[in-house]
Amino acid sequence: MTDLAPVLARLEEGHDRALAELVELAAIPSVSTDPAHLADVHAAAAWVAAKLEAAGPLTVRIMPTPGSSIVYAEWLGAPGAPTVLVYGHYDVQPVDPIELWRSPPFEPTVRNGRLYARGVSDDKGPMLIPIKVAEAFFAARGRLPINVKFMIEGEEEVGSAHLEAFVAEHQELLRADVVISADGAMWRIDEPSVTVANRGLAGLEVTLQGPAKDLHSGRHGGSVANPLHAMARLIASLHQPDGRVAVAGFYDRVRELSPAERAEIAALPFDEATYLAQVGASAAVGEPGYTTLERQWTRPTLELNGMWGGYQGPGQKTIVPSVAHAKITCRLVPDQDPAEIVALVARHLESHVPPGTRITVTPEAHGARPFHVARGNRVLQAAEAALRETYGVAPLVVRMGGTVPVAEIFQRVMGLDTVYFSFSTGDEDFHAPNEFFRVHRLHEGLAAWARLWESLGGGGAP
Amino acid sequence: MTDLAPVLARLEEGHDRALAELVELAAIPSVSTDPAHLADVHAAAAWVAAKLEAAGPLTVRIMPTPGSSIVYAEWLGAPGAPTVLVYGHYDVQPVDPIELWRSPPFEPTVRNGRLYARGVSDDKGPMLIPIKVAEAFFAARGRLPINVKFMIEGEEEVGSAHLEAFVAEHQELLRADVVISADGAMWRIDEPSVTVANRGLAGLEVTLQGPAKDLHSGRHGGSVANPLHAMARLIASLHQPDGRVAVAGFYDRVRELSPAERAEIAALPFDEATYLAQVGASAAVGEPGYTTLERQWTRPTLELNGMWGGYQGPGQKTIVPSVAHAKITCRLVPDQDPAEIVALVARHLESHVPPGTRITVTPEAHGARPFHVARGNRVLQAAEAALRETYGVAPLVVRMGGTVPVAEIFQRVMGLDTVYFSFSTGDEDFHAPNEFFRVHRLHEGLAAWARLWESLGGGGAP
Repeated sequence: MTDLAPVLARLEEGHDRALAELVELAAIPSVSTDPAHLADVHAAAAWVAAKLEAAGPLTVRIMPTPGSSIVYAEWLGAPGAPTVLVYGHYDVQPVDPIELWRSPPFEPTVRNGRLYARGVSDDKGPMLIPIKVAEAFFAARGRLPINVKFMIEGEEEVGSAHLEAFVAEHQELLRADVVISADGAMWRIDEPSVTVANRGLAGLEVTLQGPAKDLHSGRHGGSVANPLHAMARLIASLHQPDGRVAVAGFYDRVRELSPAERAEIAALPFDEATYLAQVGASAAVGEPGYTTLERQWTRPTLELNGMWGGYQGPGQKTIVPSVAHAKITCRLVPDQDPAEIVALVARHLESHVPPGTRITVTPEAHGARPFHVARGNRVLQAAEAALRETYGVAPLVVRMGGTVPVAEIFQRVMGLDTVYFSFSTGDEDFHAPNEFFRVHRLHEGLAAWARLWESLGGGGAP
Repeated sequence: MTDLAPVLARLEEGHDRALAELVELAAIPSVSTDPAHLADVHAAAAWVAAKLEAAGPLTVRIMPTPGSSIVYAEWLGAPGAPTVLVYGHYDVQPVDPIELWRSPPFEPTVRNGRLYARGVSDDKGPMLIPIKVAEAFFAARGRLPINVKFMIEGEEEVGSAHLEAFVAEHQELLRADVVISADGAMWRIDEPSVTVANRGLAGLEVTLQGPAKDLHSGRHGGSVANPLHAMARLIASLHQPDGRVAVAGFYDRVRELSPAERAEIAALPFDEATYLAQVGASAAVGEPGYTTLERQWTRPTLELNGMWGGYQGPGQKTIVPSVAHAKITCRLVPDQDPAEIVALVARHLESHVPPGTRITVTPEAHGARPFHVARGNRVLQAAEAALRETYGVAPLVVRMGGTVPVAEIFQRVMGLDTVYFSFSTGDEDFHAPNEFFRVHRLHEGLAAWARLWESLGGGGAP
């Protein structure tokens, strides 16, 4: 046995308090996409800073950016030991459609071992874990086994808009051997996993303007362009009937999988029928020639996230609407570039505008490149070991369909690898109504983070 | 000169009071499409009934239907003279998008000789005119020149849902020589017009269900059907690229125009560039082979009135949405049948559902057949004469792109012709923000209705 036992014991005794603190944090509606929640975003940053202050002799700073602040904290009292930079975020997704929540999104509620609230799985629960682990180490030993820097941002749900400039400006402050991300997600609930890649993101919004104002569809219908018809035609042109993206050049930089990579993915335990039943989809639909996991992890997408125009209320309103809107995001894989993809999609849209409408394409300011970590990375291997110790089985090696821009930014700007070490699970409805976080994952995460840090510090068997 | 002079003088003296009463009525938000406004719809019915009571020795009844009530009034004290049934409606369209109104839609405001408020042109202003004309006749002479029945309904904006059953049930009560409709609209502001046809209406709503809930577009994107992509493809399939409706059988019953009819329409004063500038459209877009007026008056359409799904708020929300919706209405021309058209469109939609989505098609309960009145109709000719007298020029003979179900219902159920005699104008933004009614049209309408009734009663030159 190792001398980690007192730390693990303290963590176990603190389970209820950790949950209570997570409830407190999750009650703050820190929705970063909505300017109306600016004060709440600030309140969440202050809460995180206070919690880090309370954890022990960390130096804590709230560092402003042109957007939300970044909470930074460090303890560098382990000379000779590695330095890890812990990443997480305190902002959350919007709550729409609010009417589908079974309990209010900012009144955290435990039901059947799950804590329900917006942001509790993405990323407030997983992000709180390393803070509580630091507190336990300080309480048990007065010190951490390694040097730790925390960088907790408030703009992950808006594409980490100001993170790259912040990292570039503070390279000295942030210098570390590796980034460990509390954001991300385990692949499934029944087996632990480590994640070695994630997709990038590029987004844009499209507006089609028809007549200057809504027109009576009786008087004018059939004689002027209807922007909803035009939008339908334009959006339909973005995909081929077989599901491939029809934008010229879209796939040009995509690295095809090697036979070995395809075999590794095919060997994972994955039952498509079960998956489809879980998400309530009637069929697997996507790019031809690839399996569902390959589509989710290794192939780029072009998805409509929203589309709207005209009358949405009860009954009829017989208008030719004036304007139609669509929100589009693409998930990117190596070596696609967000700015290039936005330009390709914009060019496609602009060259397919139906007659009688005028198009406006607004790129989202910040995209994210796709990311992957080398399989020989020593911290990745330590993370695998800590999961094996905590769960009693070897973790699966998986990829992530989603996007965590920080990993790609650290790799490009500072040459740092990121290892995902998150205890949320992919089925926890982040970005959807009734987001939840499993309470046992909180407990498992506390033990696993303690083991990982101890192992990286050279102490005990991880 | 005729003895109509005292009536016309009273009407002229009453201009300000008529406007004040219209302001009072227009302040009642009688939005029939929205159940939240049920009490307001009732209040508008009561207001109209009270105004009829005050007009003179009319017998007034508020007659319930399964929907909004119908206000009925009659005066049958002119034996031997014709009996006309005056039609109008007291319900109004919704106000969305509310943010585009320059003054609140239910706070009627006069600016530059126009009264702005929802419903003031469609149909509260035009409908008030014959009530005030009856009042003036009673005040000046103690009687009307003809027998008059008023039937003012509250469901015109929801397709006159219960009107047909009401008419069928009360044929004896409603018996008349002709219907004169205060609803409709003059074609343009610079020349008076009479309307000899209107298009019919058929509507349905489409829902496409993808996954059972909104999904994270990173984790799931590219592997399950996105109902917004599916909706775009499905809606795009409803039209051919050239603008023709692509639904099989859609045009089968359409009567083609005769060369004489086309020549009559071509001879009307209509400047397409001016029209397009008025509605803020960059080009004329529609079915190939027809002029803009032919498209608006004599060709059927299939229009999207609304389409929506997914996230519509600020910023990004990276989801694969669960569901997409579309509202569709078709304008019909002789001899299309609403139920048959709904069935054809539904069949098209159901046979084009993209993979991985489930469709629900909900027909609107009540369509309306297209309508036209014979050009030799004697009341039509009297209406033309009354307009000539009032405006000093011969009115244009035009058609109407919109739908007034009552005309078709009276023709089919009771064999009665309808003559449109409305003093709203086609540019008054009914069904759009900032609807208005020109105050001088109120004045002109009062004089013209008085002349029409007098003429039908055999008195004076109209």
